[in-house]
Amino acid sequence: MEKFRDEKLTAQERAEDLVDRLTTEEQAAQLIYDAPAVERLGIPAYNWWNEGLHGAARAGVATMFPQAIAMAAMFDQNAVKRAGEIVSTEQRAKHNEFAKHGDRDIYKGLSIWSPNINIFRDPRWGRGQETYGEDPFLTSELGKAFVNGLQGDDKEHLRTSACAKHFAVHSGPEAVRHSFDAKANAHDMEDTYLPAFRALVQDAKVESVMGAYNRVNGEGACASSVLQEKLKEWGFDGHFVSDFGALEDFHTNHGLTASAEETAASAIKSGCDLNAGRVYDKLIDALNARLISKEDIRKACVNVMRTRIRLGMLDQHTKYDDLPYSIVACREHKDLALEYARKSMVLLKNNGILPLDASKYQTIGVIGPNANSRAALEGNYCGTADRYITFLEGIQDAFDGRVLCAEGCHLYKDRVSNLARANDRLAEAETVAEQSDLVILCLGLDPYIEGEEGDAGNEFASGDKIDLRLPESQRLLVSKVMEKGKPVIIVAAVGSAINVEADCDAVIHAWYPGQSGGKALADILFGQVSPSGKLPVTFYEDADRLPAFEDYSMAGRTYRYTRDNILYPFGYGLTYSKTACSDLEVSGRKVTVKITNTGKTDTDDVVQFYLKDDSACAAPYPSLCGFVRVHLAAGETKTAETEIPEIAFTSVDENGVRAVRGKNYTLYAGTCQPDPLSEQLTGTACLSKTITL
Amino acid sequence: MEKFRDEKLTAQERAEDLVDRLTTEEQAAQLIYDAPAVERLGIPAYNWWNEGLHGAARAGVATMFPQAIAMAAMFDQNAVKRAGEIVSTEQRAKHNEFAKHGDRDIYKGLSIWSPNINIFRDPRWGRGQETYGEDPFLTSELGKAFVNGLQGDDKEHLRTSACAKHFAVHSGPEAVRHSFDAKANAHDMEDTYLPAFRALVQDAKVESVMGAYNRVNGEGACASSVLQEKLKEWGFDGHFVSDFGALEDFHTNHGLTASAEETAASAIKSGCDLNAGRVYDKLIDALNARLISKEDIRKACVNVMRTRIRLGMLDQHTKYDDLPYSIVACREHKDLALEYARKSMVLLKNNGILPLDASKYQTIGVIGPNANSRAALEGNYCGTADRYITFLEGIQDAFDGRVLCAEGCHLYKDRVSNLARANDRLAEAETVAEQSDLVILCLGLDPYIEGEEGDAGNEFASGDKIDLRLPESQRLLVSKVMEKGKPVIIVAAVGSAINVEADCDAVIHAWYPGQSGGKALADILFGQVSPSGKLPVTFYEDADRLPAFEDYSMAGRTYRYTRDNILYPFGYGLTYSKTACSDLEVSGRKVTVKITNTGKTDTDDVVQFYLKDDSACAAPYPSLCGFVRVHLAAGETKTAETEIPEIAFTSVDENGVRAVRGKNYTLYAGTCQPDPLSEQLTGTACLSKTITL
Repeated sequence: MEKFRDEKLTAQERAEDLVDRLTTEEQAAQLIYDAPAVERLGIPAYNWWNEGLHGAARAGVATMFPQAIAMAAMFDQNAVKRAGEIVSTEQRAKHNEFAKHGDRDIYKGLSIWSPNINIFRDPRWGRGQETYGEDPFLTSELGKAFVNGLQGDDKEHLRTSACAKHFAVHSGPEAVRHSFDAKANAHDMEDTYLPAFRALVQDAKVESVMGAYNRVNGEGACASSVLQEKLKEWGFDGHFVSDFGALEDFHTNHGLTASAEETAASAIKSGCDLNAGRVYDKLIDALNARLISKEDIRKACVNVMRTRIRLGMLDQHTKYDDLPYSIVACREHKDLALEYARKSMVLLKNNGILPLDASKYQTIGVIGPNANSRAALEGNYCGTADRYITFLEGIQDAFDGRVLCAEGCHLYKDRVSNLARANDRLAEAETVAEQSDLVILCLGLDPYIEGEEGDAGNEFASGDKIDLRLPESQRLLVSKVMEKGKPVIIVAAVGSAINVEADCDAVIHAWYPGQSGGKALADILFGQVSPSGKLPVTFYEDADRLPAFEDYSMAGRTYRYTRDNILYPFGYGLTYSKTACSDLEVSGRKVTVKITNTGKTDTDDVVQFYLKDDSACAAPYPSLCGFVRVHLAAGETKTAETEIPEIAFTSVDENGVRAVRGKNYTLYAGTCQPDPLSEQLTGTACLSKTITL
Repeated sequence: MEKFRDEKLTAQERAEDLVDRLTTEEQAAQLIYDAPAVERLGIPAYNWWNEGLHGAARAGVATMFPQAIAMAAMFDQNAVKRAGEIVSTEQRAKHNEFAKHGDRDIYKGLSIWSPNINIFRDPRWGRGQETYGEDPFLTSELGKAFVNGLQGDDKEHLRTSACAKHFAVHSGPEAVRHSFDAKANAHDMEDTYLPAFRALVQDAKVESVMGAYNRVNGEGACASSVLQEKLKEWGFDGHFVSDFGALEDFHTNHGLTASAEETAASAIKSGCDLNAGRVYDKLIDALNARLISKEDIRKACVNVMRTRIRLGMLDQHTKYDDLPYSIVACREHKDLALEYARKSMVLLKNNGILPLDASKYQTIGVIGPNANSRAALEGNYCGTADRYITFLEGIQDAFDGRVLCAEGCHLYKDRVSNLARANDRLAEAETVAEQSDLVILCLGLDPYIEGEEGDAGNEFASGDKIDLRLPESQRLLVSKVMEKGKPVIIVAAVGSAINVEADCDAVIHAWYPGQSGGKALADILFGQVSPSGKLPVTFYEDADRLPAFEDYSMAGRTYRYTRDNILYPFGYGLTYSKTACSDLEVSGRKVTVKITNTGKTDTDDVVQFYLKDDSACAAPYPSLCGFVRVHLAAGETKTAETEIPEIAFTSVDENGVRAVRGKNYTLYAGTCQPDPLSEQLTGTACLSKTITL
């Protein structure tokens, strides 16, 4: 038996043995994402590119969970971990069958290029929907949970390999991502951009890290000495992969190198092991030109083969080989997709109309371009659900009376029919509003206009948003419907912050809620379940009052650095009940607080812990340091417990040095942020306690 | 009161009065499809372009019936008439509201440019789906029924105006329609192309006739002296409208005229009253150039204004003004959309597997690009349903066991994901087939590739089909699934004949079955209802053995002229029961026959009457002369009665002269055509009787 097949040896030993059996040319070929077979050694071809952000993606049917930003709104590590488990379990089951049928192509493998743990720095970013929001701690916790779910806890093998992306500073604008230099100061790097990557590498042992398209402080993110130094420091033990085509940008857009050979050399020497793209086709040229050594190639090849070995690809058998196809999109998984959609929707406003008393309404009007849209359920980087329940369908199924519906307007164009005049669906919407006792306006965006450059919305804004408003077509629709004087509930399917600018009766922010989003919405509307999602990003009033989109300084951004221009704060979200916290206790880093459901409705709620450090280096406002989702029957009391992480007691100076500097800390606990607007909107106050180190 | 507002006068008198109050310039402006308001007379703007082929179209929500070709497959005048009633009733109700809200734009008016009564001469034609098939008699009967439904039976007002299109010879190819000369010989003109138009004008009093894009025997179809002469001969009393942009083709593509002025002059002088397009903007120039007279303009304007008056647009009130919006897509209408979908699907093949015994199957695999496609329900010229039930959804709702599903392939491209290799969804489909006890393959086309030049399928074949096969991607899918050896049922959503070329257990031709198509399919699959649709077109084996697509001779085309190359004959369709006809009786033109359900399943069936004339001029094979849809409980006997129309006893000579020439006629009655293949496939024989005039 070849040594590389000896399952008693370490992955490193086996990888080295395997790689040393390959010629340098063969090694180089393995460093491109669609790696060829090595027939003589019985190594099959392998395409490294797979996706699984909120469900096994882009290769047919799979359970479709809410988009990542929606899962963040659950504030629930256990649920996010379970989602990751299901994604990877379904990917394994699908991979087993695909491989059996000889299909080892893109999206069929075991290396999943998720999660996206970039900080959702600016609400205009179209890919912000892929992230866990704006807070480094929340992102770290949920990112770790998802990676743990994807990679599994088997001692022998990874269930799938996860990928922390896009290292380390990447959040738009999409239109310029291939040529842009993101300038992050030393403080923000350490304070905001790096923590989640560190957490995933150190704590979750994420198997791969992907570099970004843009430059970071002048260096290409996929060949950055500064960033690679961080990975070494953290003990990164997996492989590093470029974003797709990111290396091509070095010589064609960034002007960092003069040729593909130079880019290949620069990247592999810096530590980029795997090339998603075709630049590493030039590795042998670079070798011949003495830009790199054979050892550079060998080392990268060991790194990537080690991952394949950890995935069990060279083993006789792994326990995951027996995962049956029947678990793909099985009832249990789809039930969780529904449950997570319910938990992720955020009730932003409610004058008491919700939950609806169905007996009060004979006719409900469901209006808007997202009312019957499957795309509005999906979010980007998705698979194919075996059943979609749109908002309209969910409401139709839940309500026994008449449901009238109207598209109202195009999602963003001024007309639906090309041959018609502008606003060609407005009269229908007005009619439906007039003839209904209640209007549910289903608005927002969809992943075809909010998303990624090249994938989405090039005619709109390359996937980004131009501001925080609804598209003009929808603003007109809202104003015309509001004129009718009927009760109006706005449901916004958007992957980011938006200001619906309407004096309506209730607003539900639904995100892109996955395959059962319409059922989840109806369950919330009609009170089958209380909403309990919390904002993982700040909702601002107005984009004009934000720092420039291109400005990567955190000053004036996110709840930790601004109290200005806030529409709805980070951590905010209403339920159908009332909860009250009491008895905040601190013992070392362990914290407990009691929470009581003082209302009449069973509900989930999220206890949030924030810490404010009195040192001059600390962020100006209290930072999240713990969160616990609890379910409370009406009248029930539970104790929420967390352990404040050590990092919460540190602060970062202007040189990027993180240290414990504070003497006195204030710890807050409640179901919202400790700030006047949050407390006013939720009607609950945070408890606080001083901790002296 | 102005005379034109005097409701006691005739429409002609009122129209003349109105037109004589307009300047010639104002009259000319009314002859463009988007006619401006005449403020001083209180005449609102009016856009003539509206559609309603199988539901109020292109202006939001409406009940969506099966596509026209599917409704033809019902062989049921009453159902087609009822569909027309519902289309026009919903259009009226929508129009009432649109007008109230000041929206008088395209698709909002009362002039519906349906039905399409062109003969579906060649199965490759993408717009054949809009027609009632290949038979002049069936087309006439269903066309009249639909017009009667659209126009209503009110003595005072038309509910909506219908439009017989595209006068008179028009059936592809779509790619060359703007420059093509359709050459129809005198026999075929009278025998095949004209009868339905004559029937709609003379018998159904259709209010408008639309010309075709192409030339007909050298003349532009919208300004053809030959064709206009026919309308005069038939006593046409409505207005004539050009197809959209058809007049532009005269000088830009057909080379019939040298300029827009000349086209305008030629068209209006020939009898084209209304211009869908912008050529009539040049009418005043043509007048100034003395190409036309003021009277030419006046006459056309009277014709179009007469229609508006008949629609009640200048009246104080019509009974249709009170039609409430609540009837749009109401339960009753949607129930009929479901019923018609059930009646229109054609069971082409069944080895006994259908209806399914659900208890025999634990897992059903639903595979194919049309499995979960809303587009495959729609057909072209459609509105928006307020609820779609796809084939997959229908099966999921009906079957309690596990339903696995897979897209299998792109509808016609070789891959679903651009970044993947070819056949990227095949492994999933194979897996689903392997893991299922039964496979339902949902295949076919959709209106994005089968349809109209400009609307559909330009990258495929400008909306036409290139042959009668499934797209290559689907053929591969079929062969791979068949290899698994599981029971396979093929469901084909196609608007025309197709040869699925698979030795499967059953084939259901579903057409584009409208909003509830998936429910209808499931009802048929699981035996809630027996299928009963019959083919309104011949299904050929092979396109290579057809006459050239551009050849408008009927020789070798349709069941009346060929017995060669037949896969499934015109009139064919299986049920879940057995029926037998007996006691054929003829008395003058009145015919009766008994039909008995000799099986154990309640079912609809269609008694078909065919006549063969012994004269040399007659079509070589018996022609349909009557049809009666009956519902029969198991064991039940009913008498079907029809009256053979006089035209059935005529034949057409090579000079196009229609006359009674036969001495002996053979009348056939049965649930299929009187031909050996039909009788073999259905297992029933036709009765026959000789009639001597």
